[in-house]
Amino acid sequence: MRDAFHEDLDTISDQLVEMTRLAGSAMSRATTALLDADLKLAESVIEADKELDRLREDLDALSIDLLARQQPVATDLRMVVTGMRMSADLERMGDLARHVAKVARLRYPDSAVPADVRATILQMGQVAERIVAKCGQVIAAKDVEDAKTLERDDDAMDELHRTLFGHLIDGSWKHGTEAAVDMTLVGRYYERFADHAVSVAHRVVYLVTGEWDVAEDHEEQEDRASELR
Amino acid sequence: MRDAFHEDLDTISDQLVEMTRLAGSAMSRATTALLDADLKLAESVIEADKELDRLREDLDALSIDLLARQQPVATDLRMVVTGMRMSADLERMGDLARHVAKVARLRYPDSAVPADVRATILQMGQVAERIVAKCGQVIAAKDVEDAKTLERDDDAMDELHRTLFGHLIDGSWKHGTEAAVDMTLVGRYYERFADHAVSVAHRVVYLVTGEWDVAEDHEEQEDRASELR
Repeated sequence: MRDAFHEDLDTISDQLVEMTRLAGSAMSRATTALLDADLKLAESVIEADKELDRLREDLDALSIDLLARQQPVATDLRMVVTGMRMSADLERMGDLARHVAKVARLRYPDSAVPADVRATILQMGQVAERIVAKCGQVIAAKDVEDAKTLERDDDAMDELHRTLFGHLIDGSWKHGTEAAVDMTLVGRYYERFADHAVSVAHRVVYLVTGEWDVAEDHEEQEDRASELR
Repeated sequence: MRDAFHEDLDTISDQLVEMTRLAGSAMSRATTALLDADLKLAESVIEADKELDRLREDLDALSIDLLARQQPVATDLRMVVTGMRMSADLERMGDLARHVAKVARLRYPDSAVPADVRATILQMGQVAERIVAKCGQVIAAKDVEDAKTLERDDDAMDELHRTLFGHLIDGSWKHGTEAAVDMTLVGRYYERFADHAVSVAHRVVYLVTGEWDVAEDHEEQEDRASELR
Protein backbone atom coordinates (compact mmCIF):
# COMPACT_ATOMS: atom_id res chain seq x y z
CA MET A 1 0.00 0.00 0.00
CA ARG A 2 1.13 3.52 -0.72
CA ASP A 3 1.47 6.08 2.05
CA ALA A 4 -0.67 9.20 2.27
CA PHE A 5 1.93 11.38 0.57
CA HIS A 6 2.22 9.12 -2.45
CA GLU A 7 -1.52 8.77 -2.66
CA ASP A 8 -1.72 12.56 -2.88
CA LEU A 9 0.94 12.49 -5.61
CA ASP A 10 -1.17 9.96 -7.50
CA THR A 11 -4.14 12.30 -7.23
CA ILE A 12 -2.03 15.12 -8.66
CA SER A 13 -0.90 12.90 -11.51
CA ASP A 14 -4.49 11.83 -12.26
CA GLN A 15 -5.62 15.45 -12.30
CA LEU A 16 -2.81 16.39 -14.67
CA VAL A 17 -3.88 13.59 -17.02
CA GLU A 18 -7.46 14.86 -16.81
CA MET A 19 -6.20 18.34 -17.70
CA THR A 20 -4.48 16.97 -20.83
CA ARG A 21 -7.78 15.32 -21.78
CA LEU A 22 -9.69 18.58 -21.39
CA ALA A 23 -7.03 20.64 -23.22
CA GLY A 24 -7.02 18.12 -26.08
CA SER A 25 -10.80 18.09 -26.33
CA ALA A 26 -10.85 21.90 -26.28
CA MET A 27 -8.31 22.26 -29.09
CA SER A 28 -9.99 19.55 -31.15
CA ARG A 29 -13.38 21.23 -30.89
CA ALA A 30 -11.86 24.70 -31.42
CA THR A 31 -10.31 23.48 -34.68
CA THR A 32 -13.66 22.12 -35.87
CA ALA A 33 -15.42 25.34 -34.82
CA LEU A 34 -12.84 27.37 -36.73
CA LEU A 35 -13.01 25.29 -39.92
CA ASP A 36 -16.80 24.85 -39.92
CA ALA A 37 -17.68 28.31 -38.59
CA ASP A 38 -19.65 26.57 -35.85
CA LEU A 39 -20.68 29.27 -33.37
CA LYS A 40 -22.24 26.94 -30.79
CA LEU A 41 -19.17 24.73 -30.71
CA ALA A 42 -16.89 27.79 -30.41
CA GLU A 43 -18.94 29.05 -27.47
CA SER A 44 -18.86 25.68 -25.77
CA VAL A 45 -15.04 25.69 -25.98
CA ILE A 46 -14.88 29.20 -24.52
CA GLU A 47 -17.24 28.20 -21.70
CA ALA A 48 -15.51 24.88 -20.96
CA ASP A 49 -12.15 26.58 -20.34
CA LYS A 50 -13.39 27.53 -16.86
CA GLU A 51 -13.24 23.84 -15.94
CA LEU A 52 -9.52 23.72 -16.77
CA ASP A 53 -8.95 26.89 -14.75
CA ARG A 54 -10.79 25.32 -11.81
CA LEU A 55 -8.79 22.09 -12.06
CA ARG A 56 -5.57 24.08 -11.99
CA GLU A 57 -6.71 26.00 -8.91
CA ASP A 58 -7.66 22.75 -7.16
CA LEU A 59 -4.35 21.21 -8.07
CA ASP A 60 -2.44 24.23 -6.80
CA ALA A 61 -4.36 24.20 -3.54
CA LEU A 62 -3.70 20.48 -3.11
CA SER A 63 0.01 20.99 -3.85
CA ILE A 64 0.40 23.83 -1.38
CA ASP A 65 -1.51 21.85 1.23
CA LEU A 66 0.78 18.90 0.57
CA LEU A 67 3.89 21.06 0.97
CA ALA A 68 2.59 22.44 4.26
CA ARG A 69 1.39 19.13 5.72
CA GLN A 70 4.06 16.73 4.52
CA GLN A 71 7.04 19.06 4.15
CA PRO A 72 8.62 16.88 1.49
CA VAL A 73 12.30 17.18 0.60
CA ALA A 74 14.50 16.06 -2.32
CA THR A 75 12.65 14.15 -5.08
CA ASP A 76 9.27 14.39 -3.37
CA LEU A 77 9.54 18.16 -3.13
CA ARG A 78 10.64 18.34 -6.75
CA MET A 79 7.60 16.33 -7.80
CA VAL A 80 5.14 18.66 -6.13
CA VAL A 81 6.77 21.82 -7.50
CA THR A 82 7.05 20.33 -11.00
CA GLY A 83 3.40 19.27 -10.89
CA MET A 84 2.42 22.88 -10.24
CA ARG A 85 4.39 23.96 -13.29
CA MET A 86 2.79 21.29 -15.44
CA SER A 87 -0.66 22.43 -14.42
CA ALA A 88 0.30 26.00 -15.39
CA ASP A 89 1.35 24.76 -18.86
CA LEU A 90 -1.87 22.77 -19.28
CA GLU A 91 -4.07 25.64 -18.17
CA ARG A 92 -2.31 27.85 -20.71
CA MET A 93 -2.97 25.24 -23.41
CA GLY A 94 -6.65 25.57 -22.58
CA ASP A 95 -6.36 29.36 -22.98
CA LEU A 96 -4.83 28.89 -26.42
CA ALA A 97 -7.69 26.58 -27.48
CA ARG A 98 -10.09 29.25 -26.23
CA HIS A 99 -8.26 31.87 -28.33
CA VAL A 100 -8.72 29.71 -31.44
CA ALA A 101 -12.43 29.37 -30.62
CA LYS A 102 -12.68 33.14 -30.22
CA VAL A 103 -11.35 33.71 -33.71
CA ALA A 104 -14.06 31.32 -34.97
CA ARG A 105 -16.70 33.30 -33.05
CA LEU A 106 -15.35 36.66 -34.22
CA ARG A 107 -15.72 35.75 -37.91
CA TYR A 108 -19.03 33.89 -37.65
CA PRO A 109 -21.06 33.30 -39.87
CA ASP A 110 -17.98 33.32 -42.12
CA SER A 111 -15.15 30.88 -41.62
CA ALA A 112 -11.92 32.62 -40.60
CA VAL A 113 -9.94 30.10 -42.65
CA PRO A 114 -9.55 30.66 -46.41
CA ALA A 115 -9.95 27.51 -48.51
CA ASP A 116 -6.29 27.31 -49.50
CA VAL A 117 -5.03 27.00 -45.92
CA ARG A 118 -7.82 24.75 -44.60
CA ALA A 119 -5.76 21.59 -44.99
CA THR A 120 -2.83 23.16 -43.09
CA ILE A 121 -5.03 24.33 -40.22
CA LEU A 122 -6.75 20.94 -40.09
CA GLN A 123 -3.37 19.23 -39.78
CA MET A 124 -2.19 21.70 -37.12
CA GLY A 125 -5.30 20.76 -35.16
CA GLN A 126 -4.57 17.07 -35.61
CA VAL A 127 -0.95 17.42 -34.49
CA ALA A 128 -2.11 19.46 -31.48
CA GLU A 129 -4.57 16.71 -30.57
CA ARG A 130 -1.94 14.00 -30.96
CA ILE A 131 0.71 15.84 -28.96
CA VAL A 132 -1.56 16.50 -26.01
CA ALA A 133 -2.85 12.90 -26.01
CA LYS A 134 0.77 11.70 -25.84
CA CYS A 135 1.36 14.22 -23.10
CA GLY A 136 -1.33 12.51 -21.03
CA GLN A 137 0.23 9.08 -21.66
CA VAL A 138 3.67 10.37 -20.68
CA ILE A 139 2.33 11.75 -17.39
CA ALA A 140 0.38 8.56 -16.63
CA ALA A 141 3.21 6.15 -17.50
CA LYS A 142 6.19 8.44 -16.67
CA ASP A 143 7.76 7.06 -19.84
CA VAL A 144 10.89 9.01 -20.79
CA GLU A 145 11.22 7.43 -24.23
CA ASP A 146 7.62 8.30 -25.04
CA ALA A 147 8.30 11.85 -23.92
CA LYS A 148 11.02 12.14 -26.53
CA THR A 149 8.63 11.29 -29.39
CA LEU A 150 6.74 14.48 -28.64
CA GLU A 151 9.68 16.35 -30.15
CA ARG A 152 8.85 14.77 -33.51
CA ASP A 153 5.26 15.96 -33.27
CA ASP A 154 6.54 19.39 -32.39
CA ASP A 155 8.77 19.29 -35.48
CA ALA A 156 5.68 18.41 -37.52
CA MET A 157 3.93 21.44 -36.01
CA ASP A 158 6.89 23.66 -36.92
CA GLU A 159 6.76 22.36 -40.49
CA LEU A 160 3.05 23.15 -40.74
CA HIS A 161 3.69 26.57 -39.25
CA ARG A 162 6.36 27.14 -41.90
CA THR A 163 3.89 26.10 -44.62
CA LEU A 164 1.23 28.46 -43.28
CA PHE A 165 3.58 31.44 -42.96
CA GLY A 166 5.17 30.69 -46.31
CA HIS A 167 1.77 30.91 -47.92
CA LEU A 168 1.01 34.16 -46.11
CA ILE A 169 4.10 35.94 -47.37
CA ASP A 170 4.93 34.37 -50.75
CA GLY A 171 2.96 36.99 -52.63
CA SER A 172 0.06 34.70 -53.56
CA TRP A 173 -2.17 35.62 -50.61
CA LYS A 174 -5.51 36.84 -51.98
CA HIS A 175 -7.58 37.12 -48.84
CA GLY A 176 -6.63 40.54 -47.49
CA THR A 177 -4.89 41.51 -44.28
CA GLU A 178 -7.75 40.70 -41.91
CA ALA A 179 -7.54 37.01 -42.85
CA ALA A 180 -3.72 37.26 -42.74
CA VAL A 181 -3.90 38.66 -39.19
CA ASP A 182 -6.30 35.86 -38.17
CA MET A 183 -4.09 33.14 -39.65
CA THR A 184 -0.93 34.64 -38.13
CA LEU A 185 -2.47 34.56 -34.66
CA VAL A 186 -4.11 31.16 -35.09
CA GLY A 187 -0.79 29.72 -36.32
CA ARG A 188 0.92 31.15 -33.25
CA TYR A 189 -1.75 29.66 -30.93
CA TYR A 190 -1.21 26.15 -32.34
CA GLU A 191 2.55 26.53 -32.17
CA ARG A 192 2.47 27.68 -28.55
CA PHE A 193 0.03 24.88 -27.67
CA ALA A 194 2.59 22.35 -28.94
CA ASP A 195 5.43 24.18 -27.13
CA HIS A 196 3.61 23.90 -23.80
CA ALA A 197 2.93 20.19 -24.44
CA VAL A 198 6.64 19.62 -25.08
CA SER A 199 7.40 21.58 -21.93
CA VAL A 200 5.10 19.27 -19.92
CA ALA A 201 6.82 16.20 -21.38
CA HIS A 202 10.24 17.67 -20.53
CA ARG A 203 9.11 18.13 -16.96
CA VAL A 204 8.21 14.42 -16.78
CA VAL A 205 11.70 13.60 -18.07
CA TYR A 206 13.12 15.89 -15.42
CA LEU A 207 11.12 14.17 -12.70
CA VAL A 208 12.28 10.73 -13.82
CA THR A 209 15.91 11.49 -14.63
CA GLY A 210 16.61 14.63 -12.62
CA GLU A 211 18.09 16.20 -15.75
CA TRP A 212 16.85 19.38 -17.29
CA ASP A 213 19.20 19.59 -20.25
CA VAL A 214 16.27 19.86 -22.62
CA ALA A 215 15.13 23.23 -21.33
CA GLU A 216 17.39 25.33 -23.48
CA ASP A 217 16.74 23.21 -26.58
CA HIS A 218 13.10 23.92 -26.16
CA GLU A 219 13.65 27.63 -26.01
CA GLU A 220 15.78 27.44 -29.12
CA GLN A 221 13.03 25.44 -30.74
CA GLU A 222 10.52 28.18 -30.16
CA ASP A 223 12.99 30.62 -31.64
CA ARG A 224 13.51 28.45 -34.67
CA ALA A 225 9.77 28.34 -35.17
CA SER A 226 9.59 32.12 -34.96
CA GLU A 227 12.28 32.35 -37.61
CA LEU A 228 10.52 30.03 -40.03
CA ARG A 229 8.87 32.97 -41.65
CA MET B 1 17.43 41.78 12.77
CA ARG B 2 15.65 39.46 10.37
CA ASP B 3 15.94 35.70 10.70
CA ALA B 4 17.59 33.55 8.04
CA PHE B 5 14.30 32.68 6.37
CA HIS B 6 13.28 36.29 5.93
CA GLU B 7 16.74 37.20 4.73
CA ASP B 8 16.33 34.56 2.02
CA LEU B 9 12.95 36.02 1.14
CA ASP B 10 14.60 39.44 0.83
CA THR B 11 17.14 37.92 -1.56
CA ILE B 12 14.31 36.47 -3.64
CA SER B 13 12.57 39.84 -3.70
CA ASP B 14 15.80 41.60 -4.74
CA GLN B 15 16.35 39.10 -7.55
CA LEU B 16 12.80 39.58 -8.78
CA VAL B 17 13.37 43.34 -8.89
CA GLU B 18 16.60 42.74 -10.83
CA MET B 19 14.63 40.58 -13.28
CA THR B 20 12.15 43.42 -13.87
CA ARG B 21 15.12 45.71 -14.57
CA LEU B 22 16.58 43.28 -17.11
CA ALA B 23 13.20 42.59 -18.77
CA GLY B 24 12.55 46.33 -19.03
CA SER B 25 15.97 47.03 -20.48
CA ALA B 26 15.52 44.16 -22.97
CA MET B 27 12.14 45.41 -24.22
CA SER B 28 13.36 49.00 -24.39
CA ARG B 29 16.37 48.02 -26.50
CA ALA B 30 14.32 45.60 -28.60
CA THR B 31 11.92 48.44 -29.46
CA THR B 32 14.81 50.66 -30.53
CA ALA B 33 16.36 47.82 -32.54
CA LEU B 34 13.03 47.24 -34.27
CA LEU B 35 12.38 50.89 -35.09
CA ASP B 36 15.96 51.73 -36.12
CA ALA B 37 16.77 48.38 -37.81
CA ASP B 38 19.78 48.17 -35.50
CA LEU B 39 21.22 44.67 -35.95
CA LYS B 40 23.86 44.92 -33.22
CA LEU B 41 21.35 46.10 -30.68
CA ALA B 42 18.93 43.32 -31.68
CA GLU B 43 21.66 40.73 -31.25
CA SER B 44 22.63 42.11 -27.86
CA VAL B 45 19.02 41.73 -26.68
CA ILE B 46 18.90 38.14 -27.94
CA GLU B 47 22.19 37.35 -26.22
CA ALA B 48 21.28 39.10 -22.95
CA ASP B 49 18.16 36.99 -22.51
CA LYS B 50 20.35 34.17 -21.20
CA GLU B 51 21.03 36.29 -18.12
CA LEU B 52 17.32 36.43 -17.31
CA ASP B 53 17.04 32.67 -17.83
CA ARG B 54 19.98 32.15 -15.46
CA LEU B 55 18.48 34.45 -12.82
CA ARG B 56 15.25 32.50 -12.98
CA GLU B 57 17.08 29.20 -12.56
CA ASP B 58 19.02 30.60 -9.58
CA LEU B 59 15.84 31.88 -8.04
CA ASP B 60 14.08 28.55 -8.52
CA ALA B 61 17.01 26.70 -6.97
CA LEU B 62 17.04 29.09 -4.01
CA SER B 63 13.29 28.71 -3.56
CA ILE B 64 13.38 24.91 -3.63
CA ASP B 65 16.32 24.93 -1.25
CA LEU B 66 14.37 27.24 1.03
CA LEU B 67 11.31 24.96 0.95
CA ALA B 68 13.47 21.95 1.80
CA ARG B 69 15.52 23.61 4.56
CA GLN B 70 12.96 25.82 6.25
CA GLN B 71 9.75 23.94 5.48
CA PRO B 72 7.68 27.08 5.68
CA VAL B 73 3.92 26.95 6.15
CA ALA B 74 1.02 29.38 5.69
CA THR B 75 2.02 32.85 4.48
CA ASP B 76 5.73 32.03 4.30
CA LEU B 77 5.06 29.03 2.07
CA ARG B 78 2.77 31.10 -0.12
CA MET B 79 5.50 33.72 -0.53
CA VAL B 80 8.04 31.23 -1.80
CA VAL B 81 5.63 29.56 -4.23
CA THR B 82 4.36 32.91 -5.49
CA GLY B 83 7.93 34.12 -6.00
CA MET B 84 8.57 31.16 -8.28
CA ARG B 85 5.55 32.08 -10.35
CA MET B 86 6.66 35.69 -10.57
CA SER B 87 10.07 34.64 -11.84
CA ALA B 88 8.36 32.50 -14.50
CA ASP B 89 6.37 35.55 -15.66
CA LEU B 90 9.47 37.74 -15.73
CA GLU B 91 11.51 35.18 -17.64
CA ARG B 92 8.70 34.97 -20.19
CA MET B 93 8.73 38.76 -20.52
CA GLY B 94 12.40 38.45 -21.45
CA ASP B 95 11.49 35.88 -24.10
CA LEU B 96 8.94 38.27 -25.57
CA ALA B 97 11.54 41.06 -25.77
CA ARG B 98 13.83 38.57 -27.52
CA HIS B 99 11.06 37.77 -30.01
CA VAL B 100 10.71 41.48 -30.84
CA ALA B 101 14.49 41.68 -31.33
CA LYS B 102 14.34 38.65 -33.62
CA VAL B 103 11.82 40.34 -35.89
CA ALA B 104 14.25 43.30 -36.10
CA ARG B 105 17.09 40.93 -37.01
CA LEU B 106 14.98 39.02 -39.54
CA ARG B 107 14.14 42.16 -41.53
CA TYR B 108 17.56 43.84 -41.28
CA PRO B 109 18.77 45.97 -43.09
CA ASP B 110 15.15 47.04 -43.56
CA SER B 111 13.01 48.14 -40.64
CA ALA B 112 10.13 45.74 -39.99
CA VAL B 113 7.94 48.71 -39.03
CA PRO B 114 6.20 50.69 -41.80
CA ALA B 115 6.27 54.47 -41.29
CA ASP B 116 2.56 54.78 -40.57
CA VAL B 117 2.66 52.49 -37.51
CA ARG B 118 6.02 53.68 -36.11
CA ALA B 119 4.38 56.00 -33.58
CA THR B 120 2.11 53.21 -32.33
CA ILE B 121 4.98 50.73 -31.92
CA LEU B 122 7.10 53.40 -30.20
CA GLN B 123 4.28 54.01 -27.73
CA MET B 124 3.77 50.28 -27.15
CA GLY B 125 7.47 50.11 -26.28
CA GLN B 126 7.14 53.05 -23.90
CA VAL B 127 4.10 51.56 -22.14
CA ALA B 128 5.95 48.24 -21.85
CA GLU B 129 8.92 50.01 -20.29
CA ARG B 130 6.71 51.93 -17.88
CA ILE B 131 4.68 48.91 -16.82
CA VAL B 132 7.72 46.76 -16.06
CA ALA B 133 9.40 49.61 -14.15
CA LYS B 134 6.26 49.92 -12.00
CA CYS B 135 6.31 46.17 -11.59
CA GLY B 136 9.77 46.44 -10.01
CA GLN B 137 8.57 49.18 -7.65
CA VAL B 138 5.54 47.13 -6.66
CA ILE B 139 7.72 44.14 -5.79
CA ALA B 140 10.22 46.27 -3.88
CA ALA B 141 7.62 48.22 -1.90
CA LYS B 142 4.81 45.60 -1.82
CA ASP B 143 2.46 48.49 -2.50
CA VAL B 144 -1.04 47.25 -3.33
CA GLU B 145 -2.30 50.66 -4.47
CA ASP B 146 0.63 51.01 -6.85
CA ALA B 147 -0.10 47.54 -8.21
CA LYS B 148 -3.56 48.68 -9.21
CA THR B 149 -2.21 51.49 -11.38
CA LEU B 150 -0.64 48.87 -13.65
CA GLU B 151 -4.14 48.08 -14.87
CA ARG B 152 -4.31 51.56 -16.37
CA ASP B 153 -1.06 51.01 -18.23
CA ASP B 154 -2.41 47.72 -19.45
CA ASP B 155 -5.53 49.51 -20.67
CA ALA B 156 -3.24 51.92 -22.54
CA MET B 157 -1.49 48.92 -24.12
CA ASP B 158 -4.86 47.47 -25.18
CA GLU B 159 -5.79 50.79 -26.73
CA LEU B 160 -2.53 50.87 -28.72
CA HIS B 161 -3.09 47.27 -29.74
CA ARG B 162 -6.55 48.20 -30.98
CA THR B 163 -5.06 51.10 -32.97
CA LEU B 164 -2.44 48.83 -34.55
CA PHE B 165 -4.92 46.10 -35.48
CA GLY B 166 -7.46 48.62 -36.68
CA HIS B 167 -4.88 49.99 -39.08
CA LEU B 168 -3.99 46.49 -40.25
CA ILE B 169 -7.54 45.58 -41.20
CA ASP B 170 -9.27 48.84 -42.15
CA GLY B 171 -8.43 48.38 -45.82
CA SER B 172 -5.76 51.10 -45.94
CA TRP B 173 -2.78 48.77 -45.33
CA LYS B 174 -0.32 49.22 -48.19
CA HIS B 175 2.66 47.21 -46.97
CA GLY B 176 1.76 43.68 -47.99
CA THR B 177 1.12 40.61 -45.87
CA GLU B 178 4.71 40.05 -44.74
CA ALA B 179 4.68 43.37 -42.88
CA ALA B 180 1.16 42.59 -41.66
CA VAL B 181 2.36 39.27 -40.25
CA ASP B 182 5.31 41.00 -38.55
CA MET B 183 3.13 43.69 -37.00
CA THR B 184 0.50 41.16 -35.87
CA LEU B 185 3.13 39.16 -34.02
CA VAL B 186 4.97 42.19 -32.64
CA GLY B 187 1.66 43.60 -31.38
CA ARG B 188 0.93 40.30 -29.68
CA TYR B 189 4.41 40.25 -28.05
CA TYR B 190 3.91 43.71 -26.50
CA GLU B 191 0.41 42.82 -25.37
CA ARG B 192 1.60 39.58 -23.70
CA PHE B 193 4.52 41.43 -22.11
CA ALA B 194 2.06 43.79 -20.42
CA ASP B 195 -0.21 40.87 -19.43
CA HIS B 196 2.66 39.14 -17.63
CA ALA B 197 3.58 42.40 -15.87
CA VAL B 198 -0.01 42.75 -14.65
CA SER B 199 0.10 39.14 -13.54
CA VAL B 200 3.25 39.83 -11.47
CA ALA B 201 1.56 42.83 -9.85
CA HIS B 202 -1.52 40.72 -9.07
CA ARG B 203 0.70 38.20 -7.36
CA VAL B 204 2.09 40.94 -5.12
CA VAL B 205 -1.48 41.95 -4.24
CA TYR B 206 -2.21 38.31 -3.47
CA LEU B 207 0.81 38.09 -1.19
CA VAL B 208 -0.17 41.22 0.71
CA THR B 209 -3.93 40.71 0.92
CA GLY B 210 -4.33 36.96 0.45
CA GLU B 211 -6.99 37.66 -2.16
CA TRP B 212 -6.79 36.44 -5.71
CA ASP B 213 -10.03 37.93 -7.06
CA VAL B 214 -8.13 39.68 -9.81
CA ALA B 215 -7.06 36.50 -11.55
CA GLU B 216 -10.19 36.02 -13.58
CA ASP B 217 -10.41 39.69 -14.50
CA HIS B 218 -6.97 39.39 -15.95
CA GLU B 219 -7.94 36.44 -18.12
CA GLU B 220 -10.95 38.34 -19.34
CA GLN B 221 -8.69 41.26 -20.05
CA GLU B 222 -6.55 39.18 -22.35
CA ASP B 223 -9.68 38.00 -24.09
CA ARG B 224 -10.94 41.53 -24.47
CA ALA B 225 -7.63 42.47 -26.05
CA SER B 226 -7.87 39.55 -28.46
CA GLU B 227 -11.34 40.75 -29.44
CA LEU B 228 -10.23 44.29 -30.14
CA ARG B 229 -9.68 43.37 -33.74
